[in-house]
Amino acid sequence: MKASQFLISTLKEAPADAEVASHRLMTRAGMIKKLGAGIYSYMPMGLRVIRKVEAIVREEMNRAGAIEVTMPVIQPAELWQETGRFEKMGPELLRIKDRHARDFVVQPTSEEVITDIARQEFRSYKQLPKNFYQIQTKFRDERRPRFGLMRGREFTMKDAYSFDRDMDAAKQSYQVMAQAYRRIFDRFGLSYRAVAADSGAIGGDLSEEFQVIAATGEDAIVYCPTSDYAANMEKAEALAPQQARGAATQPLTKTATPGKATCADVAELLNLPLKNTVKSLVLATDELDEQGAVAKTQVWLLLLRGDHDMNEVKVGKVPGLNNTFRFATLPEIEAHFGCKPGYLGPLNLVQPVKLVVDREVAVMSDWVCGANEADFHMTGVNWGRDLPEPELVADLRNIVAGDPSPDGQGVLAIERGIEVGHVFYLGTKYSRAMNATFLDVNGKPQFLEMGCYGIGITRLPAAAIEQNHDERGIIWPDAIAPFTVAICPIGPDRSPEVKAAAEALYAELMAAGVDVILDDRGERPGAMFADWELIGVPHRVTIGDKGLKEGLVEYQHRRDAAATKVAVGEVFAHLQSRLAPVA
Amino acid sequence: MKASQFLISTLKEAPADAEVASHRLMTRAGMIKKLGAGIYSYMPMGLRVIRKVEAIVREEMNRAGAIEVTMPVIQPAELWQETGRFEKMGPELLRIKDRHARDFVVQPTSEEVITDIARQEFRSYKQLPKNFYQIQTKFRDERRPRFGLMRGREFTMKDAYSFDRDMDAAKQSYQVMAQAYRRIFDRFGLSYRAVAADSGAIGGDLSEEFQVIAATGEDAIVYCPTSDYAANMEKAEALAPQQARGAATQPLTKTATPGKATCADVAELLNLPLKNTVKSLVLATDELDEQGAVAKTQVWLLLLRGDHDMNEVKVGKVPGLNNTFRFATLPEIEAHFGCKPGYLGPLNLVQPVKLVVDREVAVMSDWVCGANEADFHMTGVNWGRDLPEPELVADLRNIVAGDPSPDGQGVLAIERGIEVGHVFYLGTKYSRAMNATFLDVNGKPQFLEMGCYGIGITRLPAAAIEQNHDERGIIWPDAIAPFTVAICPIGPDRSPEVKAAAEALYAELMAAGVDVILDDRGERPGAMFADWELIGVPHRVTIGDKGLKEGLVEYQHRRDAAATKVAVGEVFAHLQSRLAPVA
Repeated sequence: MKASQFLISTLKEAPADAEVASHRLMTRAGMIKKLGAGIYSYMPMGLRVIRKVEAIVREEMNRAGAIEVTMPVIQPAELWQETGRFEKMGPELLRIKDRHARDFVVQPTSEEVITDIARQEFRSYKQLPKNFYQIQTKFRDERRPRFGLMRGREFTMKDAYSFDRDMDAAKQSYQVMAQAYRRIFDRFGLSYRAVAADSGAIGGDLSEEFQVIAATGEDAIVYCPTSDYAANMEKAEALAPQQARGAATQPLTKTATPGKATCADVAELLNLPLKNTVKSLVLATDELDEQGAVAKTQVWLLLLRGDHDMNEVKVGKVPGLNNTFRFATLPEIEAHFGCKPGYLGPLNLVQPVKLVVDREVAVMSDWVCGANEADFHMTGVNWGRDLPEPELVADLRNIVAGDPSPDGQGVLAIERGIEVGHVFYLGTKYSRAMNATFLDVNGKPQFLEMGCYGIGITRLPAAAIEQNHDERGIIWPDAIAPFTVAICPIGPDRSPEVKAAAEALYAELMAAGVDVILDDRGERPGAMFADWELIGVPHRVTIGDKGLKEGLVEYQHRRDAAATKVAVGEVFAHLQSRLAPVA
Repeated sequence: MKASQFLISTLKEAPADAEVASHRLMTRAGMIKKLGAGIYSYMPMGLRVIRKVEAIVREEMNRAGAIEVTMPVIQPAELWQETGRFEKMGPELLRIKDRHARDFVVQPTSEEVITDIARQEFRSYKQLPKNFYQIQTKFRDERRPRFGLMRGREFTMKDAYSFDRDMDAAKQSYQVMAQAYRRIFDRFGLSYRAVAADSGAIGGDLSEEFQVIAATGEDAIVYCPTSDYAANMEKAEALAPQQARGAATQPLTKTATPGKATCADVAELLNLPLKNTVKSLVLATDELDEQGAVAKTQVWLLLLRGDHDMNEVKVGKVPGLNNTFRFATLPEIEAHFGCKPGYLGPLNLVQPVKLVVDREVAVMSDWVCGANEADFHMTGVNWGRDLPEPELVADLRNIVAGDPSPDGQGVLAIERGIEVGHVFYLGTKYSRAMNATFLDVNGKPQFLEMGCYGIGITRLPAAAIEQNHDERGIIWPDAIAPFTVAICPIGPDRSPEVKAAAEALYAELMAAGVDVILDDRGERPGAMFADWELIGVPHRVTIGDKGLKEGLVEYQHRRDAAATKVAVGEVFAHLQSRLAPVA
């Protein structure tokens, strides 16, 4: 491609609403253009990246035996009513009425449609396994779209759906996809981690997220540097402490802590380590009557160490709290504790509550908690002496760095990631709801076993940039760069030799199938270099009059601190030595 | 591809609502699956065809210098309000409200968005010309979607938009696209015609439709077999007759024609040629006051020869009728003619009307028309004698076969076509509405000159089938066939030789880059052949035990009446001789 035949449209200024590097840089590099909140046009430079991402995904999906289909963007509501998602999903699901006032949705995913196809297609176990995928426009009406392509409303996703005859076969299909995802992310040339994820109500271990490592990532990833263990924060288990509880050494004492309503403030006032304090979190669950009105409310008290954070997914798995809990209201708290938040604790309750104790709290002695009296805390609290031994002990907290790895192979570290892929075993959730069956070897109808597998095609370039950029711009890995090589002739209009050398190298690289752009715009060298560094083309060859007289051109990788002089005759070989091998 | 790894899903029965061959055959061949009215999933076999269409279009658009972008499917209403299309377009434009009750549309085309991009991107004439295209999902909420992919609601279109500094440059960009379209349609391997089309209010000759010739086409195409002239029915001009009007030979006579309310019936009753009769069409135009209420209505009488049909586009170009006419109401007709329709004519009017006379009617003598009295017609009507010479004479009618070609090179013929492409010079219609300007050589702002260019990506396969099918199924041209070659081994499970020969040929063709499918499903020969004939793969090689013993396999093109025996060692060369050359 010659630059004069393309649209190169860089900006000095980033948009005011761009909070993250990828949003700033993709806009400044002329890769995307905002049309509305969370809605972007993919400009020529950006679309080249997206097409390369698509091509890698398509190749590897095909290689893994998945079959490409395309399902409609606009889908009739009837199917979504069959699974209940038309009602259950929030306003993220964009609902439409057509000219005949019939209900439709703009697809955020396509479980319903593919399950509808499957129940029409599959009659016998002999037709299984099958895996269908599409690379297609999706829409999620995010409440607060932001971060450019990272959390847009309209986006492109690769979604695949596997169909199997039983759970064992489904697990095998899942593993095939998990392997294909590793190949795909390897080929992208990004640093990533496949982490175990929570599989919700379905249970089992068959859910993994593919996270691109980046300091700006929205997700916390837990991993063990000395083993293979990796999980997202929701999933990563905090093991029960190995050590036994220490003996009680202090008397139970009511201590004045005026205005100290947080564990940190109390620890500071009392000159104690934060981990000697216990925080009280008050939840509630409602029992509904047949009319759906609240018949009965149970209030729960959760105790966590002062330096630990509650993990909502883990709390949602505590028997009785199963995903239906909410935070208690102020009147509910005052009715049970006789006190406002900030000074709550398990002692001196007005009304009984259900107590759930984090594993770490269960082994504490001489701890500090609220006294259920404003401006007072209790110190020297001890299990068995000041209150009964805890009955309900569970993992309620987020991992912190230094916790032991659940696989026993070391201690855990935490880093940030951007979720760009997810593989998930669905079981019969959708096939049961939509009565999608096949006849097994005995001629008996069985529900199809399913899995679903997503990759955020348009999010991936944004994640790549969050991981790979500097103050001058983007640094693309070769595999998904808009162009692999930029040839920058200096003053080609003044020097026929420079022009000829640039054209010759361009022709040579084109013939070799290298994705090269020749910058024939006639820009000043500074502007030209700034553009290509902003756009992030990984390899640059600069051809100038002075160098040419000595038979030299300059090569610089986008990560190199300085250019390397290379003999004109060797530049092609030199480039080849620096290009990433094509997978 | 091996059939066992793919989804081959043919049906014996066509859907009840399938009225045309392409809808029936694409459904039966497992290429599309209906999700809702006018909404289809593209199944694996169909998607392969669509991807080949896309690839050809993309290659030729790139070759013609167009640059690919992707614009959002869901577009904010604001831009559509700028051009007035948000209000003007009918219910075909699917309108959406998002969670914040803001208005959006699902794009039927993208003139507004691309013009918005252009007004941001283009500052100087030096950046022009540019041509942007996308291959993207579109939606038109058709009142009556039908014919499968021919008139669906969700569909894929390639839409391109050119931007130029002046009309001459825009015409050049238009010609570049018109040439690219010819290359594209040549490569598809279809019989097509580029026909002049009406360019509406913009005028000029810069509008052409690309019509795939098919007896079932919705459009009538007018062409001259002995010249290059071709136009669609709306556009094709009926020249003024060469011959002078004959002298009046009959007296004006009121003739009883009881119950004969059509020209055909009257001609039969009176034993006259139909072309001696004149039909009366009554139109009306309304003048509105400032409040938009009808202030004044003008009634028009159009006279056409009894054997001719009115052409609404041409009528809309008559001064005074400009696109705003409607058919007159019954009360309006009775008030002016004193008679019900069926017996109307220009004589004996109750109230005056504006008369518009077709060119052919203006040279008629001794003609027949309604008497403005029920059950009576006038015969022997003559201009100048029975009524004044016509003042307003115009081309009001559709061409009929045998009319002289407007280029003077022969007589016209008519055939049916399916519109699959359109190139159109837009001028400054959108740039003016959206204030999209650039600075010309003198530093003065000018509106961008635009053109737009569409190809119906998902309609094309349907049009190809309408043109190329027989009672057994589809017959794909090589370029867009889902697979180019099908290898059909007979009883491979019984004969290791057959299996080995099939696998060897498969490997050989794969290595040569031929898009081949090996039918390893183990189906009976009859079922296997029926599938591939329905699906329409153009080349088939059948390998059987009996033939192999003599060193022979069978080759059959989908259009061949019978198979040809070919020596095993020569089958690859034979195939190559029959494959369409790759453009």
